[in-house]
Amino acid sequence: MVIKMAKFIDKLNKSWLKSGSQLMVGLDPDPSRFPEELKTQDNAVYEFCKGIVDATAPYVCGFKPQIAYFSSIGAETELEKICAYIRSKYPELVLVLDAKRGDIGATASQYAKEAYDRYLADAVTLNPYMGFDSVEPYLAYSNKGVIVLCRTSNPGGSDIQFLNVADGQPLYMHVAAMVADSWNADRQCALVVGATFPNEIAKVRNRVGDMPLLIPGIGAQGGDIQATVKAGRTSKGKGMMINSSRAILYASSNSDWREAAALAARKTYIAINNADS
Amino acid sequence: MVIKMAKFIDKLNKSWLKSGSQLMVGLDPDPSRFPEELKTQDNAVYEFCKGIVDATAPYVCGFKPQIAYFSSIGAETELEKICAYIRSKYPELVLVLDAKRGDIGATASQYAKEAYDRYLADAVTLNPYMGFDSVEPYLAYSNKGVIVLCRTSNPGGSDIQFLNVADGQPLYMHVAAMVADSWNADRQCALVVGATFPNEIAKVRNRVGDMPLLIPGIGAQGGDIQATVKAGRTSKGKGMMINSSRAILYASSNSDWREAAALAARKTYIAINNADS
Repeated sequence: MVIKMAKFIDKLNKSWLKSGSQLMVGLDPDPSRFPEELKTQDNAVYEFCKGIVDATAPYVCGFKPQIAYFSSIGAETELEKICAYIRSKYPELVLVLDAKRGDIGATASQYAKEAYDRYLADAVTLNPYMGFDSVEPYLAYSNKGVIVLCRTSNPGGSDIQFLNVADGQPLYMHVAAMVADSWNADRQCALVVGATFPNEIAKVRNRVGDMPLLIPGIGAQGGDIQATVKAGRTSKGKGMMINSSRAILYASSNSDWREAAALAARKTYIAINNADS
Repeated sequence: MVIKMAKFIDKLNKSWLKSGSQLMVGLDPDPSRFPEELKTQDNAVYEFCKGIVDATAPYVCGFKPQIAYFSSIGAETELEKICAYIRSKYPELVLVLDAKRGDIGATASQYAKEAYDRYLADAVTLNPYMGFDSVEPYLAYSNKGVIVLCRTSNPGGSDIQFLNVADGQPLYMHVAAMVADSWNADRQCALVVGATFPNEIAKVRNRVGDMPLLIPGIGAQGGDIQATVKAGRTSKGKGMMINSSRAILYASSNSDWREAAALAARKTYIAINNADS
């Protein structure tokens, strides 16, 4: 019997439908900001992430661990554990590994193995600077997704992404077009577009049709939910993974941290849905 | 007493002078290609890397572990150990962590901590797509170096890097100029330029003065040493970290693997020096 694995896009569509949410919670565990009760605890990184996942799961379409926060403190084992936990306890939610990888083919194959086999991610964020053959090894995993950086939420994003290229459009629009027209042949692609630039989200949405957008930058980074959703929704509504990390993770550092995270997630999810109706 | 740490550029200049070599050996450990005698051994990744490091150290200016090969197999501890070993046994050689990171400030700080504090790297490779504020947290480590992707050695590198931007030059030249004129204020920067494009190495060299270049792509990727060196040397000679990985690491899979790696490194080092005289 062949078990046919669902494609990333199908899993994401189902998750939007079933959860009714386009909120994605980013897992950026910073031990210096952990609640007091965890600070003396072994396994605090895992316990913190698990607490956040369980508290916010009712309000999200998925989770997005940011690998840098784990690798800076040597917590790869905790990342493996939290990814496995999400996959087993919330199999219907999407798991995006935020790694922003970009390397030549032979090395990219190693990173694909890391993201999909080791951390069980449904999709991984990638940097387009090294071109198509740096993305191809990930696309070889036909049931998995790649989420390509297009227009990032940081101020310096403009240094390169806003340069006009030969066809007269800024580089980020060229990347959007390239991914939509060429890299997305098997519908495995999505794009990262920062919430700090709603006008540019709208331009990207207009160019790429219903391709999913991962939108970081609401919450601590200051992006406006209303403007983001108006700009990023597809013609049928939905279409976005809108990420919030710090504003939810560190909503409280007291003993009510789980409840505070749940409340922050619930508020954000409702604000997104109100804007998308 | 304040111990003043040498800057990366000074350490690199000293290493070129003392070793007489511009060869860098890339550590890309792939267990499926290990010599037979290691295949059944615990700790094979570390033992393989240590064997290569000791065999090739007399012929190199530094080592460049490629983190993807370690993270795909959960070998972060082995990477920590081999980096610590290089720093303690060969303190005069430069240690470059090839990670090609690129992320917003708060996350970039975590990656900088990973590269410099956890793995003790002298320098780390970075992707410029997210702009200056994605590089700034690394520059805050004043004795460390950043090596920015400019023109990569893979065929798909042209997809983005070869686009003409508004000032009429290809993007990789714009990146070279931006790094040279702006990001390199404290002489912490170097650039990655692939050996597969010697004409473009020459253009970059001409634009950036004596800034160090990390040049991958000789050996298994087919770059020509003679053309590379002619294109990449500074007006005084030297100026390059010319990387070879697979052609040296896997020169033999028999019991003579250390000797074969030493011989391959020695031949490459001599070929580089002959071309640079």
